Amino acid sequence: MAMDAISVIRTKRDRGELTDEQIDWVIDAYTRGEVADEQMSALAMAILLNGMDRREIARWTAAMIASGERMDFSSLSRPTADKHSTGGVGDKITLPLAPLVAACGAAVPQLSGRGLGHTGGTLDKLESIPGWRALLSNEEMLSVLDGVGAVICAAGDGLAPADKKLYALRDVTGTVEAIPLIASSIMSKKIAEGTGSLVLDVKVGSGAFMKTVEDARELASTMVGLGTDSGVKTVALLTDMSTPLGLTAGNALEVRESVEVLAGGGPADVVELTIALAREMLEAAGIRDADPAKALADGSAMDVWRRMISAQGGDPDAALPVAREQHVVKAPSSGVLTRLDAYDVGVAAWRLGAGRARKEDPVQAGAGVEMHAKPGDRVTEGQPLLTLHTDTPDRFDYALQSLEGSFDIGSGGDFTATPVVLERIA
Amino acid sequence: MAMDAISVIRTKRDRGELTDEQIDWVIDAYTRGEVADEQMSALAMAILLNGMDRREIARWTAAMIASGERMDFSSLSRPTADKHSTGGVGDKITLPLAPLVAACGAAVPQLSGRGLGHTGGTLDKLESIPGWRALLSNEEMLSVLDGVGAVICAAGDGLAPADKKLYALRDVTGTVEAIPLIASSIMSKKIAEGTGSLVLDVKVGSGAFMKTVEDARELASTMVGLGTDSGVKTVALLTDMSTPLGLTAGNALEVRESVEVLAGGGPADVVELTIALAREMLEAAGIRDADPAKALADGSAMDVWRRMISAQGGDPDAALPVAREQHVVKAPSSGVLTRLDAYDVGVAAWRLGAGRARKEDPVQAGAGVEMHAKPGDRVTEGQPLLTLHTDTPDRFDYALQSLEGSFDIGSGGDFTATPVVLERIA
Repeated sequence: MAMDAISVIRTKRDRGELTDEQIDWVIDAYTRGEVADEQMSALAMAILLNGMDRREIARWTAAMIASGERMDFSSLSRPTADKHSTGGVGDKITLPLAPLVAACGAAVPQLSGRGLGHTGGTLDKLESIPGWRALLSNEEMLSVLDGVGAVICAAGDGLAPADKKLYALRDVTGTVEAIPLIASSIMSKKIAEGTGSLVLDVKVGSGAFMKTVEDARELASTMVGLGTDSGVKTVALLTDMSTPLGLTAGNALEVRESVEVLAGGGPADVVELTIALAREMLEAAGIRDADPAKALADGSAMDVWRRMISAQGGDPDAALPVAREQHVVKAPSSGVLTRLDAYDVGVAAWRLGAGRARKEDPVQAGAGVEMHAKPGDRVTEGQPLLTLHTDTPDRFDYALQSLEGSFDIGSGGDFTATPVVLERIA
Repeated sequence: MAMDAISVIRTKRDRGELTDEQIDWVIDAYTRGEVADEQMSALAMAILLNGMDRREIARWTAAMIASGERMDFSSLSRPTADKHSTGGVGDKITLPLAPLVAACGAAVPQLSGRGLGHTGGTLDKLESIPGWRALLSNEEMLSVLDGVGAVICAAGDGLAPADKKLYALRDVTGTVEAIPLIASSIMSKKIAEGTGSLVLDVKVGSGAFMKTVEDARELASTMVGLGTDSGVKTVALLTDMSTPLGLTAGNALEVRESVEVLAGGGPADVVELTIALAREMLEAAGIRDADPAKALADGSAMDVWRRMISAQGGDPDAALPVAREQHVVKAPSSGVLTRLDAYDVGVAAWRLGAGRARKEDPVQAGAGVEMHAKPGDRVTEGQPLLTLHTDTPDRFDYALQSLEGSFDIGSGGDFTATPVVLERIA
């Protein structure tokens, strides 16, 4: 049967199910440039509004995997354990987690991304370490992974090129927030990468793409199904993103906090989530005799971190960049901090220079927001609540606008802390 | 307030109403190329699936008018009367209608289009007349209109350029069939053109965009509302397009049939619809003492036709092109022809070479389908039912495929003729 883009678009527009042949054809033709961007964006909008069923999502994912190369970790002596977060504010967990899980005996390949919008990117954070390189060849990546046990680097261009093209398109056409498209985008890369097990950290709340537990649950179970059906042992944790993770949002600021966690300290929520995800990854990889809390306390995770940074040209002892200018936001009253909004803080950090408006923009290594209290903490009128960091002080006003109404201070009488981990889906 | 394409797309995607400012901005920015094709196609799909209310459609239309120039017919001595058909198979009505209404005292400007898909284009039909030119400057157009009383020509590039760009985009992105977009596309050009009155021929049935009376009624009342609100006296007729109009579908074939009507003959349905639309146009233009049936019978409409064709370089006495090859489809049984499907005949004519697959393709002047019976007619086994015409006989098989199942011959016991005019909306 001859295929054309308009008939595929019309099928989904009119609430039909796309056939396997239609999906294979449209992904391949889009990758080759035969289906135009304006046709794929109309199809993406129709998918966003009319949905895809489980078979369609699985086939869409498989077609995106087939658009590029597949990697193979079977030559490694250790089982592989991968983790993916759907993105949040202050989410630096990959940084302590990868060396921690490697210290416990797994091989941890972390093909990571850059920030776009209000959520930061793991590669942007690590690039604040002098000398560190995100771009590795496949051979270099396997060599670091084999020698150190953990590697964090940019995904190569060969992995799911259809997803790369579609992701950039969705970003400018208002079609990011479609569960079938988010799930297939994440899982096509993870399955093509060839990991044996995968733990998904699906964020819920104002600072996440998924604003409700229901949406997050649907996304998580869709991804767990896709992974399991492809032979990847997959587990998801739904975790809170109503308030930022830890006490920092920004590139060098978050590296500093991650090193504190690896040194046995750091904010309680970051430590708790790091250990919870480590336990899931180790269990999924079939490693049962390791204790991540001990590996943080005895310095073995820190040791892997230092070797991992060095292996990619970074100096783990170098001083991290500090922004040239600071502005302190003081507590306007005394009481209990009952709310500190993740989205607002993320936008402020982004506006201060920690993130980029367009893919080609540079980021400021030192920019971001430092928090001096977390929800549930008691604060005193006039004490520092937030410190804003930037190299370009003309950005303070714009960043402060996004912080208007971003926090509440009250009596605390009806305050209940939100747990870090909300749900587990396997 | 700063605008960006993504927030406009998101508003409609999430079932919100677009503000006047959002609509003005997105149409202007799209015309200037600041909003990309892939963004506009996502927005068009969101509009198709989530709709627009009456205010949004009116503003969208106004913004498309504002994207270009407006014409002015106020210098003419006669009232202007315009007509637009939403397109059908064998719909050659503009050809006899424009000179007929001019013969009755109105000025009839017909800015017409070319065929795309299974419906023919008025300009393609007239171009089968040797020497005839579709492209006139605004001055030439006004001069023919003033001197002859009727002109049929291509719309200039200056009229609603936003619509021109958006129409071409919708055509390749599966977003043609959206009532708000069809209504605003048609009415933006008609209002910008500056006519005082407008009669809409909204087709219903297999050969039309609107397959049901309900959809056609919604489209018609939307357009009548837009015209009336802009000071254009607007009336719509819902007319049948379940079977082709007249006995021909194809360019020169339809010109020949139109000349028969102007000579006082021609198929009954074409004559009936031509006179019905003429009466509506004359009434809308405020001309009450003219009789279109008489103007067909006494040769005055034919006289305007001949002068109109000559004024645009055509020779009204020249022989029309005839296709090199013919193929006759015979009646497989005797009985009453109870159905002859408009869409199937339109596709056959298109495949024979009367239409084009892409905008840049040429059309064959002689190609098309000639019908020897209409629904309700008695036929005898073995008599010619259809004659297919083409210069390229290798197309016969492909055209015949579309005619499989296109007609029914039965006892005629339960046959009821569908009226030509189904409803009037004012």
